[in-house]
Amino acid sequence: MKSVYFFGNKKADGNADMKNLLGGKGANLAEMTNLGIAVPAGFTITTEVCTYYYQNAQSFPQDLDKQVKLSIKKVEQAMGKKFGDKKDPLLLSVRSGARMSMPGMMETVLNIGLTSKTIPGIIAKTDNSRFVYDAYRRLIMMYADVVMEKSAGIEPQEGHGIRHQLEKILNLYKKEKKYKSDIDLSGEDWKIITEKFKSRIKKVLGGEFPDDPYEQLWGGIKAVFQSWNGKRAISYRRIENIPGEWGTAVNVQAMVFGNTGDLSATGVAFTRNPATGSNQFYGEWLKNAQGEDVVAGIRTPQPLNEATKTTASTHLESLESFLPDIYLELNTIRKNLEQHYRDMQDIEFTIEEGKLWMLQTRTGKRTGGAAITIAVDMVNEKLISKEEGIMRVSPNQIDELLHPRLDIKEEKSAEVVAKGLPAGPGGGVGQVVFTPDDAEAWAKEGKKVILVREETSPEDVHGMHAAEAILTAKGGMTSHAALVARGWGKCCIVGCADLNINYDNKEITIKNTLIKEGDWVSMNGSKGVVYLGQVTLQPADPESNNAYRELMSWADNIRILKVRTNADSPEDSKQAIAFGAEGIGLCRTEHMFFDPKRIMGMRKMILAESEHERRSAVMELLPYQRKDFIGILNTMAGKPVTIRLLDPPLHEFIQLNDIQVKDLANELNVTEQKIRDRIASLHEFNPMLGHRGCRLGIAYPEITEMQARAIFEATADLIGKGINVMPEVMVPLVGTNTEFENQEVIIRNIADTVMKEKKISFHYIIGTMIELPRACLTADEIAEHAEFFSFGTNDLTQTTYGFSRDDIGGFLPGYLEQNIFSKDPFQSLDKAGVGKLISMAVTKGRSVRKNLKIGICGEHGGDPASVEFCHQNGLDYVSCSPFRVPIARFAAAQAAIKYRD
Amino acid sequence: MKSVYFFGNKKADGNADMKNLLGGKGANLAEMTNLGIAVPAGFTITTEVCTYYYQNAQSFPQDLDKQVKLSIKKVEQAMGKKFGDKKDPLLLSVRSGARMSMPGMMETVLNIGLTSKTIPGIIAKTDNSRFVYDAYRRLIMMYADVVMEKSAGIEPQEGHGIRHQLEKILNLYKKEKKYKSDIDLSGEDWKIITEKFKSRIKKVLGGEFPDDPYEQLWGGIKAVFQSWNGKRAISYRRIENIPGEWGTAVNVQAMVFGNTGDLSATGVAFTRNPATGSNQFYGEWLKNAQGEDVVAGIRTPQPLNEATKTTASTHLESLESFLPDIYLELNTIRKNLEQHYRDMQDIEFTIEEGKLWMLQTRTGKRTGGAAITIAVDMVNEKLISKEEGIMRVSPNQIDELLHPRLDIKEEKSAEVVAKGLPAGPGGGVGQVVFTPDDAEAWAKEGKKVILVREETSPEDVHGMHAAEAILTAKGGMTSHAALVARGWGKCCIVGCADLNINYDNKEITIKNTLIKEGDWVSMNGSKGVVYLGQVTLQPADPESNNAYRELMSWADNIRILKVRTNADSPEDSKQAIAFGAEGIGLCRTEHMFFDPKRIMGMRKMILAESEHERRSAVMELLPYQRKDFIGILNTMAGKPVTIRLLDPPLHEFIQLNDIQVKDLANELNVTEQKIRDRIASLHEFNPMLGHRGCRLGIAYPEITEMQARAIFEATADLIGKGINVMPEVMVPLVGTNTEFENQEVIIRNIADTVMKEKKISFHYIIGTMIELPRACLTADEIAEHAEFFSFGTNDLTQTTYGFSRDDIGGFLPGYLEQNIFSKDPFQSLDKAGVGKLISMAVTKGRSVRKNLKIGICGEHGGDPASVEFCHQNGLDYVSCSPFRVPIARFAAAQAAIKYRD
Repeated sequence: MKSVYFFGNKKADGNADMKNLLGGKGANLAEMTNLGIAVPAGFTITTEVCTYYYQNAQSFPQDLDKQVKLSIKKVEQAMGKKFGDKKDPLLLSVRSGARMSMPGMMETVLNIGLTSKTIPGIIAKTDNSRFVYDAYRRLIMMYADVVMEKSAGIEPQEGHGIRHQLEKILNLYKKEKKYKSDIDLSGEDWKIITEKFKSRIKKVLGGEFPDDPYEQLWGGIKAVFQSWNGKRAISYRRIENIPGEWGTAVNVQAMVFGNTGDLSATGVAFTRNPATGSNQFYGEWLKNAQGEDVVAGIRTPQPLNEATKTTASTHLESLESFLPDIYLELNTIRKNLEQHYRDMQDIEFTIEEGKLWMLQTRTGKRTGGAAITIAVDMVNEKLISKEEGIMRVSPNQIDELLHPRLDIKEEKSAEVVAKGLPAGPGGGVGQVVFTPDDAEAWAKEGKKVILVREETSPEDVHGMHAAEAILTAKGGMTSHAALVARGWGKCCIVGCADLNINYDNKEITIKNTLIKEGDWVSMNGSKGVVYLGQVTLQPADPESNNAYRELMSWADNIRILKVRTNADSPEDSKQAIAFGAEGIGLCRTEHMFFDPKRIMGMRKMILAESEHERRSAVMELLPYQRKDFIGILNTMAGKPVTIRLLDPPLHEFIQLNDIQVKDLANELNVTEQKIRDRIASLHEFNPMLGHRGCRLGIAYPEITEMQARAIFEATADLIGKGINVMPEVMVPLVGTNTEFENQEVIIRNIADTVMKEKKISFHYIIGTMIELPRACLTADEIAEHAEFFSFGTNDLTQTTYGFSRDDIGGFLPGYLEQNIFSKDPFQSLDKAGVGKLISMAVTKGRSVRKNLKIGICGEHGGDPASVEFCHQNGLDYVSCSPFRVPIARFAAAQAAIKYRD
Repeated sequence: MKSVYFFGNKKADGNADMKNLLGGKGANLAEMTNLGIAVPAGFTITTEVCTYYYQNAQSFPQDLDKQVKLSIKKVEQAMGKKFGDKKDPLLLSVRSGARMSMPGMMETVLNIGLTSKTIPGIIAKTDNSRFVYDAYRRLIMMYADVVMEKSAGIEPQEGHGIRHQLEKILNLYKKEKKYKSDIDLSGEDWKIITEKFKSRIKKVLGGEFPDDPYEQLWGGIKAVFQSWNGKRAISYRRIENIPGEWGTAVNVQAMVFGNTGDLSATGVAFTRNPATGSNQFYGEWLKNAQGEDVVAGIRTPQPLNEATKTTASTHLESLESFLPDIYLELNTIRKNLEQHYRDMQDIEFTIEEGKLWMLQTRTGKRTGGAAITIAVDMVNEKLISKEEGIMRVSPNQIDELLHPRLDIKEEKSAEVVAKGLPAGPGGGVGQVVFTPDDAEAWAKEGKKVILVREETSPEDVHGMHAAEAILTAKGGMTSHAALVARGWGKCCIVGCADLNINYDNKEITIKNTLIKEGDWVSMNGSKGVVYLGQVTLQPADPESNNAYRELMSWADNIRILKVRTNADSPEDSKQAIAFGAEGIGLCRTEHMFFDPKRIMGMRKMILAESEHERRSAVMELLPYQRKDFIGILNTMAGKPVTIRLLDPPLHEFIQLNDIQVKDLANELNVTEQKIRDRIASLHEFNPMLGHRGCRLGIAYPEITEMQARAIFEATADLIGKGINVMPEVMVPLVGTNTEFENQEVIIRNIADTVMKEKKISFHYIIGTMIELPRACLTADEIAEHAEFFSFGTNDLTQTTYGFSRDDIGGFLPGYLEQNIFSKDPFQSLDKAGVGKLISMAVTKGRSVRKNLKIGICGEHGGDPASVEFCHQNGLDYVSCSPFRVPIARFAAAQAAIKYRD
């Protein structure tokens, strides 16, 4: 088995198509090498080795060692240096590289190969002992943290890890020497520091810092594989839905240095603007620095070129003006890479003593708006097809545009307290918290929070996820906070230097303003401005974005699935039409009964002693229901409206406290005891599995009659006015054909009666919600009578798995943690189980009724993966909440492209 | 379409194979006719006409009238009489006849054709005006009740119907005339009565009694079809699982009269004894009587022959001695019919002026014991094969033998209060009630009741069903009560003439003894003795019955399915072995925790704050569990024992009142609040769908570890002593392969550890309960690791249908009533839905593991129809409660025969 893939000297074993095996980074390093771009030579250890490692008690394949040694030979040849050599030693970096980018979630070790034997040679070669000992102390710090502490199985408390201890030693030394910054330290200083570091490591971790280059190398490789199953990585994978089986590759590459002097530099750039999508070279660089300095957001970086300078960066020198030749070379590489990859690239480069080296290229992360602009531009530039353009934008990026923004007028008069870099789009309003744990805890209590940090680190992701928005004092547009927030489409402002954060007191001082924990702030993440207090959030207005409109019109032309919405009111219906809904897939009728004017009728009905009494109580509700349906059907004129008959168990309408019981007893002139008895008799042990759905309409046909009458009278009324309404009556919770047929007879009788009474004829259809396994298993029988199916995937998921959404708190988090479930099946449809039932129901249903209309109206209707599944299974439509309609439309187009014949 | 099938003159259109079309009665009348037996001519209107009638707004096919007229012509020819003729009129009976016998559930009209025109002729012909007017008044009474009152849509209160009113008129007349019995009335008296009847009918029902023979005939035919959907018939069909779609046929037949004088008689007989099965001609007859007099149980009938006389009937004249020639002829017919039908027959005959007419033959109902004896005898007589013998006995009849009997010793010293006919076998002990409604209501409250009635009628079936036993003052062994009770295998004593029942005061006087409602009595239904007070009921002892043992040994040889039992204790296990269980299919472990000594450990565990604390609490339970398993495994030595790990949600173990909370707080030295908080945090909205099953073992692996350790330590202990034990560890409520694999790893680790610790190796297998739809849908994935499946059909039914057994009270009765469900799916497996999932799981499971062991351990395991389904689907075993084991063994044999290649 080939476990190691070499790249260097314009020739690589791998290429860009081998991401699954080499990871994104490794595949692209190979591809760039093949393109003739100057890439430091190196090799990639495959993801298969990672899989092997975890399947074999964390050991390596037998011949890995041999393959690695062979590859190091090739690297030595390409770079003209020798690993461990006394005179001109090759130094190596060890970096992770998964199939999908997981920024900062795994480990990196740089400067491997610095030992007591090689240091003198490299000092002699560079004549820069300061640089060498600085590099050596960086190696020691990283290695102690990433390899030694972790392999010792020590999990120190925050602020007490070996890295912090070494940092303290450095700070103490600087204080003693009265140095202000790292720049003040000489080579000798750094040498002393490295000795102090090594003795502290021995004391704390109980082992010598390794002085053998190969020992260092294998320690680094192992640490990277180990970090694939680190806490941060697992947590990130869960959020991003990355399977644990994929594993990471390891890239071992010759070091080049951006920090050897003033002709050295390092930088990160995007081939187009990742925030707006505009076609301009956009990036940041730092003179005399290692790459990590830019990414970590510790120093505020300089703009790449003149065109992209902002008011905040206008005073900083651009690479374009400092090293114009190098900039031109880089710009040429930029253009070549974009033409080659046909997508916006995120690149890393290092300039070592005037020579440009490319260290990475990958598809660049971008905001939703940028993704759309880039896709539409590239289609119009004829770089990609419309279909490719659609596939380039994720449904979640569409979602970003749908996110709320701050009210523009209020924003104008709001008090600006700080400005920073606009790292994540949209608006965010919330109460300030200072730790990710607080963010998570407060959010769990239903509070909206803004997470404020000096800078964020991968340890913070859970809090960042929980927060409405993220605000950091440090870091640039490519800092951790910015990358993560953009990936999620979350409002984020970084590099907000005016912030003086005091974690201990939980407060921020900004000049004269004091913001304490719990204070409200509002953020415009698209402009980078922070306001004091609560500014109103306004709904998103994607339609004002030309590129969005163009992309969505392509999507609508391509998609086959129709998209409806779940709406219970004319207002929601209007909103949904604005978002492109083509009908209502689920209009619940029970919410309509909870209005105080109406619930009394419901309660009277529930307490009725005879069918006659019950019928007259139910009929009191008719005028209300008819009005509801007139409103919704009218709003949806020309579009189908699926109305579900009453679904919840009756006890939901009669949950009363003592006073309410008394009042109701007075109102209805019955004894309190009677009410209490009825409440007790309606009690259910498992309401999910109780007397609800069509079981109600069968036990109390008068309810079905009243609702059918309300629907058909509303229909007759509107049809009479020349309005084209298309009601679809949906019987809920059907498990057997006999249940459906029972209700169908009642509904058709009422329809006939209303047509006769109103002397008008109208069209309607009757169908059922398919939300029980048995309905799927006997869908052929049910389809004999039902004219449509609508999958209620919430209930279907509950019954298929045998757990209720209300009762999974005790185990679902643990299930996701332990990878027993890769996803929450209530968020994304379980294809292996629930999906199998759906496929079966579709096949069986259409086997007896070829033109059976089939849709889905559970919450999965707005989940892209579930939409894809619905397309694959030949459904006619999906129905989701109004705000998810554009996402469903778009996901439907992607599915149509993906599964084109 | 041929709607009418003629029979008569030794030639019939139909035969015994046409039961579906002609009903049982019609098909057998045709068959007897073809056999050359003297059957009064007649014709059968098919069940298809019944179906047509209900599908076409209760109307008849167009040409039915023509076909009926044609057939009447043939009957006239055969009998030499003319319908409606002035001189020698043909009289007709109209009787129902469904595919399966539904005794007394539908209507009958006799003596049709008596009108003002025909009466004089028939009087002239018979020279017996008394007989003619008696027949006429019978026609009027039946017709008014069955046809006129019902077609008028009147539903009178009990005791106020037209029939009762007419009976009152008759009683009043007798009183006025000082007549003691009907025999005292002359022809003139009866004539006056008929006039009185007709004028009352006109007054009450508003119509004339029809005087046209055809009007009478069509009224009768319609009434029979109408009665198919009468309340009694629907109720009976539900209990007997007879589909409503079958419909009834109508038999129109020439009347013959057993009441024309002393040379006339009528009788009912069985070709073998229906109570014991012994091969003797057994029956009852009445001189000068119509057939209904015997069946209705109004007069105590006489024994058919000398051999079957009992101490109670020794003084009554047998047919054998009164009419020896006729008896011989009848006995010959008996033998012919039994040889022809190869089964015990229930026959009806009438002797009209010394001529024997056969009116019916059908397979005779019999007690379970009789069924077994007859089957085994007939096999030994080489009349039928062993397979046929097995198919002749229903599993429910096997069940009868398993029913409890009165303790023999106690019975000897108990106070006998009455004796009657032993109509239904076994013992019955309960409190006396007097109405079927009371029987039902008391039984619902959990009381055991004895229903005491003068005589029973089809209106009483619901109360008879609810009662432990039935006791009547009137009627014989073929009375309604006797037939119905025998069909159900229920304890029943009839004809207990000493009983003086006072319905108004709800009491019985028996000589000097007064028994009031609610008083306890005990009954020996096999001997016909009633005792005062409560005699202990003893378990059944089927093994003492030779025929049973022989039949079961044939069944065990033939069946393919193995039969295990559900048992949680050594005692139950022993019982089950005695009943033939071949292993334990379900040993629940949760009951073991509710012991007061143990539940504290459970509660400590639930309240534990850390894994460490929880683990130590759980381990306190280890010695108890180990002891449990040693007991069960030892008892089941050599047989497999499937042990299910903990299943119920934790809150079941910590349902405490205020005092218990306080005690527990003291005991554990924690605050009461802490306990209350934990109880609150464990609350679930839908416990069925909550944190239970393997979800517990995954969240709290220490529970699984402890249980696995207890199982394997017990195993090691017994194996060490040379006892062959076969543990099968069952993981409950698995929905995904990942859940199973998580638990499997824990269990196998413990097994390995125990083997090492005990220095012994043992065999075990690990499998899972398949009780969720998702487990069925992904059974192939689960079977990759699971070594056996056991279908938990209770939960699988709950989740497939989406209703819980605890919460169906609100709608299931209505569903059965309205025929939305034909059966309770918790009693008999739903093949169309749940069954489909099971089939799928079997196929998928065996597709990856060819020798996957598969069983069923829900309550369906003891239901014959479900056992058949399991056989069809290739399961290895069924598991059921100990008392159902013989039934399952027998049902398995029947399935094997039915589906033999």
